[in-house]
Amino acid sequence: MNTWSHAFTAPFTAAGRAALVPPPPWHYAGWLLNVAFEHEAAGAAALVPPAAGRALGRGCVHFADWQACTDGHELLDPVLAQYRETIVVLELERPDGSRCNYCPAIWVDQDISLLRGLLQGWPKKAGSTWLTRSLPLAHPAAAPLAAGTRLGATLAVRERRLLEARATLTGAPGRPLGFLALPTLGAVGWPDLRQPGVMPEPRLLRPDIRDRIGSGWHAAEASLQLLAHPHEELDALGAVRAVEASAGWIGISVAGALDA
Amino acid sequence: MNTWSHAFTAPFTAAGRAALVPPPPWHYAGWLLNVAFEHEAAGAAALVPPAAGRALGRGCVHFADWQACTDGHELLDPVLAQYRETIVVLELERPDGSRCNYCPAIWVDQDISLLRGLLQGWPKKAGSTWLTRSLPLAHPAAAPLAAGTRLGATLAVRERRLLEARATLTGAPGRPLGFLALPTLGAVGWPDLRQPGVMPEPRLLRPDIRDRIGSGWHAAEASLQLLAHPHEELDALGAVRAVEASAGWIGISVAGALDA
Amino acid sequence: MNTWSHAFTAPFTAAGRAALVPPPPWHYAGWLLNVAFEHEAAGAAALVPPAAGRALGRGCVHFADWQACTDGHELLDPVLAQYRETIVVLELERPDGSRCNYCPAIWVDQDISLLRGLLQGWPKKAGSTWLTRSLPLAHPAAAPLAAGTRLGATLAVRERRLLEARATLTGAPGRPLGFLALPTLGAVGWPDLRQPGVMPEPRLLRPDIRDRIGSGWHAAEASLQLLAHPHEELDALGAVRAVEASAGWIGISVAGALDA
Amino acid sequence: MNTWSHAFTAPFTAAGRAALVPPPPWHYAGWLLNVAFEHEAAGAAALVPPAAGRALGRGCVHFADWQACTDGHELLDPVLAQYRETIVVLELERPDGSRCNYCPAIWVDQDISLLRGLLQGWPKKAGSTWLTRSLPLAHPAAAPLAAGTRLGATLAVRERRLLEARATLTGAPGRPLGFLALPTLGAVGWPDLRQPGVMPEPRLLRPDIRDRIGSGWHAAEASLQLLAHPHEELDALGAVRAVEASAGWIGISVAGALDA
Repeated sequence: MNTWSHAFTAPFTAAGRAALVPPPPWHYAGWLLNVAFEHEAAGAAALVPPAAGRALGRGCVHFADWQACTDGHELLDPVLAQYRETIVVLELERPDGSRCNYCPAIWVDQDISLLRGLLQGWPKKAGSTWLTRSLPLAHPAAAPLAAGTRLGATLAVRERRLLEARATLTGAPGRPLGFLALPTLGAVGWPDLRQPGVMPEPRLLRPDIRDRIGSGWHAAEASLQLLAHPHEELDALGAVRAVEASAGWIGISVAGALDA
Repeated sequence: MNTWSHAFTAPFTAAGRAALVPPPPWHYAGWLLNVAFEHEAAGAAALVPPAAGRALGRGCVHFADWQACTDGHELLDPVLAQYRETIVVLELERPDGSRCNYCPAIWVDQDISLLRGLLQGWPKKAGSTWLTRSLPLAHPAAAPLAAGTRLGATLAVRERRLLEARATLTGAPGRPLGFLALPTLGAVGWPDLRQPGVMPEPRLLRPDIRDRIGSGWHAAEASLQLLAHPHEELDALGAVRAVEASAGWIGISVAGALDA
Repeated sequence: MNTWSHAFTAPFTAAGRAALVPPPPWHYAGWLLNVAFEHEAAGAAALVPPAAGRALGRGCVHFADWQACTDGHELLDPVLAQYRETIVVLELERPDGSRCNYCPAIWVDQDISLLRGLLQGWPKKAGSTWLTRSLPLAHPAAAPLAAGTRLGATLAVRERRLLEARATLTGAPGRPLGFLALPTLGAVGWPDLRQPGVMPEPRLLRPDIRDRIGSGWHAAEASLQLLAHPHEELDALGAVRAVEASAGWIGISVAGALDA
Repeated sequence: MNTWSHAFTAPFTAAGRAALVPPPPWHYAGWLLNVAFEHEAAGAAALVPPAAGRALGRGCVHFADWQACTDGHELLDPVLAQYRETIVVLELERPDGSRCNYCPAIWVDQDISLLRGLLQGWPKKAGSTWLTRSLPLAHPAAAPLAAGTRLGATLAVRERRLLEARATLTGAPGRPLGFLALPTLGAVGWPDLRQPGVMPEPRLLRPDIRDRIGSGWHAAEASLQLLAHPHEELDALGAVRAVEASAGWIGISVAGALDA
């Protein structure tokens, strides 16, 4: 089949205008609550490919409320632009001794982002994220950026709560955590249905993130609960304990991916 | 049936803890795009009770992304707090010569807000609102508060687009519009199923809004499209034309309602 | 305010065409899984108005996949017609010694049904019901009406599982259970926001159900789990134990309501 | 990266239990409304790869309400099993003179089915399908299988109606149409983000469908409307005209895919 189609993803029409995902660059801006946690390092072996590295017993959950676009037309029809997701990353020591994150699980509420994630090594499935927003108002419902403001964040997968976090802003500056602090690897692979008994051999990639811009992070004290779930595998991490948290806005652009 | 239940709304349990709507005060903070429009004044007679007043041919559509709470517990489980809605108000001259708004139609995506609205005279039905958010970042996906930033807002009802707006921030201060500028009346009534052939006689009420706080409005130039819909009646307004727009954050509290 | 509007519910327009709920008769046809259960009778006092009667320690959960209409136009635009809900009823001895059910809780996924329920004394809130369907095929995914076929049914409220049931068809005829076996009372009331500190005094009503038609019930052995939930009150029932189950199709029509 | 993971799709964990899509065989049972239509044959060139064949000016829209499983566990937690979708297929003459269908567009409401489709060459995106169900009851809301029963089916994509169909059962037997009558090809391909400027070269595949079982098709007279949509490309087909329709239940199993 020749290069008849100008589509980046299915459907592969001649013009490619209906493609679910257009080519990068992809621009993302969002409000995030980041909760760094400790976990049982040994358990991560069930979730992390040995080639990626060795888990160090630290990770981060990011609850994110995104607005994303390519050339900007999505912002004029925001059903195309907005989605929420929950990202789990684990900190690894790579075989070469450097450090990175690996993403073993992520859940999103929109199809465009789901496929865009699979292409980058973010293994997205459907999930429902809720996250208190901070509005620039001194009002009981606004959760302004001030010491003592409380935030909640939750993830439900297949209609069961999987993660719940609560955070209280301290009023001090916070730090970038998780994928905001270290490069993050992911595994990309696709089975071939002509050989349905053969599992794919995923390739480790790292998104090529450029043009990061932040509003400054706001420190928080947080708690995190990981709940039992029949269809997920995060319980391999054992008990998790929140150790640090931050909230704020960030903008990034992804230009493609690199071998990792 | 005595006052056994402490519930404000159904279900009427003894403790009232499961009630869909708790009693006021209700606190709301949100991001709004307000698009004032002109319409055919005569057509409004199909939508506005004569007792409320006479339509002047002006109205406003508010696209709103809310966070709401009572004692604040909703902000820690934000599935209880967040919803989006589209509000239509029409400007009236009351029988006493004063001016007000009347709300003939409003659509929301959450059950708590739906019933809370019906109690106040906001005739809420289910609908899906999308609204570009402004994040405090200079980034292509952030729609920052700056001259030239473009916003989109849309409403779908029963899976058909009903309203679409686009706005470009001018960089100048904006004005409060619609329900933010004038008191807004609504009609409250409930049929009695023991007399299923009798239509209710609604009562005109006005929400008792207190403690309004704003971030300042940002002026915008906007366009507005009202699309045909088989189950709605806004086409009674004839052609609509956007005449002024503003965007910003606002916080209000509702303590109850007053006769109007 | 005179009887200017021909709307049965809000919005109260002149024509009433946009009203969320049209007047009865309301016709319902659906596929139901009914799971009768035993509970701690004393606990029901938290959920049942004393005027309704005394709980006997038996109840029923109905998982329902409905199609509803008035004059039939909804079947041609089925987003108006279809919804799923989970109904809990408790069996009571009335003060006069007769028996009935009372509905303390019900969750639905559509706005039309939500308000229609509140008018009848079904205290509906939003919830997400999933229910295996039986298709007339001998196929692994069809769950045909045959001995050994297994069905699942679940309810999530605010993104947390609240009820889970599993059933295995026995191949024998089943019985009508719950609201299909005894009249069911509900409480109808509306707070007046002009007196926001006054709780409403609900009235006991009974839907006026006519023209019931069934396909015959199919007996099942079932299990039922009632899970903890921070915003619900069914835990007042203590441990629940499934004692009988049936599945099948039923059609009913509601003409209004009667004092109960 | 070695074959450490037993996952068929992401996330690529060691056990593979959390994978979005488990390996085939995949079993599907559903209720379908099939509407065959005529279209402008020349326009299909924008949607069909030349290597697939030449469009003949005929196609079919399938509105489907599915229940799907692998080993059956999905039927006990039906949030995993049930989804709705709308499938468009076009009839082609292949280069060898044989006939087949090609699927240029399909929309679904569940993530598992979305990825499972992309693997088979069904180019799924998110969309909302509603379809009147036929229940085995003589009741106004049941749409029983009888002459004169009317059915509605609709598809909305990004909150805009794209397809609407109405059908009236004739009482006569119907025919299998569309993908139920001829093998259907699809294009499978994945871009490589390491070369973000290179469009993928999709491969033509044909699902390996086995164990088809049907309930018999019921003929219907139908109308079909294809509405304008800013993000889709079906308008390339020009005006469409319904020429034949059928409804019924079918069960199929997919074992993998074959080169086409």
